[in-house]
Amino acid sequence: MESPFGKHILAEYFECGCTFLDSEPAIRNLMLEAASRSGATVVGDIFHHFSPQGVTGVVVVAESHLAIHTWPEFGYASVDLFTCGTRVDPWIGFEYIKKELQSKRCVSKEIARGDMEEEPGSLLEAASG
Amino acid sequence: MESPFGKHILAEYFECGCTFLDSEPAIRNLMLEAASRSGATVVGDIFHHFSPQGVTGVVVVAESHLAIHTWPEFGYASVDLFTCGTRVDPWIGFEYIKKELQSKRCVSKEIARGDMEEEPGSLLEAASG
Repeated sequence: MESPFGKHILAEYFECGCTFLDSEPAIRNLMLEAASRSGATVVGDIFHHFSPQGVTGVVVVAESHLAIHTWPEFGYASVDLFTCGTRVDPWIGFEYIKKELQSKRCVSKEIARGDMEEEPGSLLEAASG
Repeated sequence: MESPFGKHILAEYFECGCTFLDSEPAIRNLMLEAASRSGATVVGDIFHHFSPQGVTGVVVVAESHLAIHTWPEFGYASVDLFTCGTRVDPWIGFEYIKKELQSKRCVSKEIARGDMEEEPGSLLEAASG
């Protein structure tokens, strides 16, 4: 069932063969293009380069947000693609990012936001008042 | 074990009794304060009010990001608190947001980023090359 609120893809891109994990302009372009290809409408974005290395950035879209954090020293990037509505397909963005980062190994998980259930044995609270 | 990359809390706040779910300045203040209380260093932020209602916003911090999307018509907000390092405690931000939103029911999940495993039976790809 479609979540009433949103579809959230958490993605881990390991063993990235691309050369731009530490480039703020290149990572920004990557994420804006991923948003666009997914069918999302960009509202704004904010990107930041860290010293000595690493890029963090978020693209706010009318349908929620996309976020990335890169660890160039590990060839790793974590990405979130959170979209709502049926018009947008975040998996297109996921595949585009995977290809551009030249990730040899990636792990992903889709979570229906607004319909999340606690996992059995979770340490975390549920239905707290 | 601590993830080498980050701790990501996904939170769903239902039945929010507060009156400011549709106020961009109030939601922005809430998230900036949550970042600060968690011990994070704010790098920048971007917030947006949607028509007819709803607020989306992201606070980029030196330790990753915090994001919120509100659906005032459902008394609901989805929040992400993604932080790295041991100096920051996103659970403090989680509790602060819960209290301020006056959420009567919330569900949360913590995911170790960079160490995520596919769930058995997941529809999603893993270790694709």
